Amino acid sequence: MALTVPALGLLALLCLFSSEPVQAGKVLVMPVDGSYWLSMKILVEELSHRGHEMVVLVPETSVLIGKSANYTTKYFRVPYTHADLKANLDNIEKNAFEKPPKLTDIVENLGNLIQETGFDVLLTDPFLPCGTIIADSFSLPAVSFLRMIPCLLDVEATQCPSPPSFVPRFFTGYTDKMTFPQRIENTLMAVFDAFLCRKLFARTDELASRYLQKDTTYKEQLSHGAVWLLRYKFTLSRSINCAKKGPLTKELEEFVNGSGEHGFVVFTLGSMVSQLPEAKARELFEAFRQIPQRVLWRHTGPVPENAPKNVKLMKWLPQNDLLGHPKAKAFITHGGSHGIYEGICNGVPMVMLPLFGDQGDNVQRLVSRGVAESLSIYDLTAEKLLVALRKVINDKSYKEKITELSALHRDRPIEPLDLAVFWTEFVMRHKGAAHLRPAAHELNWIQYHSLDVIGFLLLILVTVIFVTVKSCMFCFRKCFKKTQKKKKE
Amino acid sequence: MALTVPALGLLALLCLFSSEPVQAGKVLVMPVDGSYWLSMKILVEELSHRGHEMVVLVPETSVLIGKSANYTTKYFRVPYTHADLKANLDNIEKNAFEKPPKLTDIVENLGNLIQETGFDVLLTDPFLPCGTIIADSFSLPAVSFLRMIPCLLDVEATQCPSPPSFVPRFFTGYTDKMTFPQRIENTLMAVFDAFLCRKLFARTDELASRYLQKDTTYKEQLSHGAVWLLRYKFTLSRSINCAKKGPLTKELEEFVNGSGEHGFVVFTLGSMVSQLPEAKARELFEAFRQIPQRVLWRHTGPVPENAPKNVKLMKWLPQNDLLGHPKAKAFITHGGSHGIYEGICNGVPMVMLPLFGDQGDNVQRLVSRGVAESLSIYDLTAEKLLVALRKVINDKSYKEKITELSALHRDRPIEPLDLAVFWTEFVMRHKGAAHLRPAAHELNWIQYHSLDVIGFLLLILVTVIFVTVKSCMFCFRKCFKKTQKKKKE
Repeated sequence: MALTVPALGLLALLCLFSSEPVQAGKVLVMPVDGSYWLSMKILVEELSHRGHEMVVLVPETSVLIGKSANYTTKYFRVPYTHADLKANLDNIEKNAFEKPPKLTDIVENLGNLIQETGFDVLLTDPFLPCGTIIADSFSLPAVSFLRMIPCLLDVEATQCPSPPSFVPRFFTGYTDKMTFPQRIENTLMAVFDAFLCRKLFARTDELASRYLQKDTTYKEQLSHGAVWLLRYKFTLSRSINCAKKGPLTKELEEFVNGSGEHGFVVFTLGSMVSQLPEAKARELFEAFRQIPQRVLWRHTGPVPENAPKNVKLMKWLPQNDLLGHPKAKAFITHGGSHGIYEGICNGVPMVMLPLFGDQGDNVQRLVSRGVAESLSIYDLTAEKLLVALRKVINDKSYKEKITELSALHRDRPIEPLDLAVFWTEFVMRHKGAAHLRPAAHELNWIQYHSLDVIGFLLLILVTVIFVTVKSCMFCFRKCFKKTQKKKKE
Repeated sequence: MALTVPALGLLALLCLFSSEPVQAGKVLVMPVDGSYWLSMKILVEELSHRGHEMVVLVPETSVLIGKSANYTTKYFRVPYTHADLKANLDNIEKNAFEKPPKLTDIVENLGNLIQETGFDVLLTDPFLPCGTIIADSFSLPAVSFLRMIPCLLDVEATQCPSPPSFVPRFFTGYTDKMTFPQRIENTLMAVFDAFLCRKLFARTDELASRYLQKDTTYKEQLSHGAVWLLRYKFTLSRSINCAKKGPLTKELEEFVNGSGEHGFVVFTLGSMVSQLPEAKARELFEAFRQIPQRVLWRHTGPVPENAPKNVKLMKWLPQNDLLGHPKAKAFITHGGSHGIYEGICNGVPMVMLPLFGDQGDNVQRLVSRGVAESLSIYDLTAEKLLVALRKVINDKSYKEKITELSALHRDRPIEPLDLAVFWTEFVMRHKGAAHLRPAAHELNWIQYHSLDVIGFLLLILVTVIFVTVKSCMFCFRKCFKKTQKKKKE
């Protein structure tokens, strides 16, 4: 099931669930810290609003997972690795003399908590394995809430067919339509992924086996997940969330309205990159000087003295609110998943500068739909940026196609947040979702692909041919001998 | 997409669709006559209630498709085959002298109708090919509303992966869990299906090619369907419809309430069979005489003189209303798709007597879930029926498991009728659903399975091995010669 969750403020259509009375349940949440938490938090708060008791397990050193009136937090100590220690110079002294807690410490505490509370379901982001392992250990059904896991482990673990002939792999940058050489690369990538998975998750497999005291793998553990709530769609066809547009500040409103008929351009490179190398930045300023549009740029680097007047630099941009403004003409973005969906939702053509991760793949898929232009950050010049920017702004087909894509994207029978809540509650009501588990999990690779059956049938065929040929030859020889004998006689 | 449609009286949750304003559109409907029409009619009427203009194409000789205030009907003449003529003796005279209309006659009429009306979408049951061909001919996006098509042509046409290792084929009677010999049979059946499809639809392919004046197949035509509304689920996990229970007549209410704590048994063999061979019927009466439950039996055959008092024979039964009664203990059924879903919805364990068609498959899937017992109609005896009936009534696990299955079946995020309406309107809003069409359609069988890529990679591997071996041998020989020379010297 491909279920997706909106970013902000979607109204819950409670009437949807009125057919089945929802009993208040108890949900254990094992999140992944950082941006992973931001979207899971929305689901956690929504479940809390609907009356469920939410307990969130938080690592002591959490970055983003804070307390809330909507859920209980339980902190657990985390053993630091040597690398962490080095990075956190200030903490060295304190930690060096402290014995790191063992996994069993966490388990013992958890064991008490779980026995006392009696949870109905565990909600986790399987990007990290803790939640999934805890679910197995305490026989809790797991709801896996996922944006991405390396080497398509989720697809492998759910036994979801994904033929490499039209399902592009990570980092290939291909779309579902591939040429023969591209299909070769994609197939090799699929084989490579399988090896990568084993290598990458070897330690996780070992951890799961040691901790659960049985011979198992992380993939195997994941395969027991009751329901997967996926926050991606590789076709970019229908997915995730369109946040509601909020009002702009008076200052911003004045700036963008002052752009007149030419409108304005929004430029951010995501939460990770706010400062560009000076040479690159200079090229960008040069390009912006030559366009009639105003530009809003999330930039914290040095500003040249003669910076063009049409550019407004800011430390932080209300990206979605700006893109939702009718005067927004183009969006210069690195192609992160949040940014592209905001661009699609608001129907703004894009100029894309992919930096790392899945961004290259995202960009290719949008370019192939004719709603974006892609540029390499490595050899970016003012001239190249100008060409791309003028193209997406002046060639009307970009705006038409993104408007169409936006309409498709927003048109769905049920809001993603409601769907995510429904399936989490479904798992609680039915104590798992064993009936949705495909029987494919009971087959090994050879059986799944029917290679044993094909082998067996080939064996029979070969045997039949062999016996037939031998028999014929035998008969032929007999006859031949007789003829020879007769001739001799 | 597996979307399903309820049989009767489900309330429309209009709030669901309030986010996207629904413009009144024009829908052309090409139904299949008979029971196929009964469920499509529900969708047609619902779309009409929501303000769309519905035009239903009806063959002149229609059995079930009648007029309605909710939709316009357009009749078209149908050419009778020789077999039809023989069967309809009364009509012979009239028809023998009438020139059968050509396909082009229908087309010309339709052409005018379509040009005048400007339809947005064509709704059809692809069990018969007319609708799909008309859609292509007039470039209308098609919504395919399907219960079943032979040899899994729908799966083939949509390029939906369905590995024979865990997806059972028609008429095998297997579930998703198969032994090695069963997998062999299922794989052979899958291969056989592919040949069967070609043979079975050869005339349809020819019809489509001739009529559309291009080289095409029915499968190819089907593959252009925008959205499929499927009224089946082979896993029996979540599907079709639970109708609301209506009140019983006073007479029936008295009869079933008079059954006391033992409750009653419902017995029907579907709309096709209401009369059993006398010997079989006698066995059944004998069995019913020996149970404490009362029995409601849809039976029109001869009744023995000493028929047991606890059996009530009727020409027609309000099956769903009876199964919804709290005193219903068991359901003896032939395993037709309507009946089994009524049994599941109401949570009544079943004794199944499969007769033909997909019934054998349905029965096996319920038996494997521990909610039914299966008997062969051919060697049915009073004793066997008694054993099965007592088992499903007295062994509590049957009731528990069917209650569980019923809960799973009824628990869904959105009503099937609303989903069917949503996707039909989606196709109207977006003039098709080209973005949902998998790129797999542009690949041939060899490409889809990456056999060309595998072949190419194998070729390279073999070449590399060959060159390496040859090079080594060459070097080896050279060295060897030198050594020999040296030795000689």
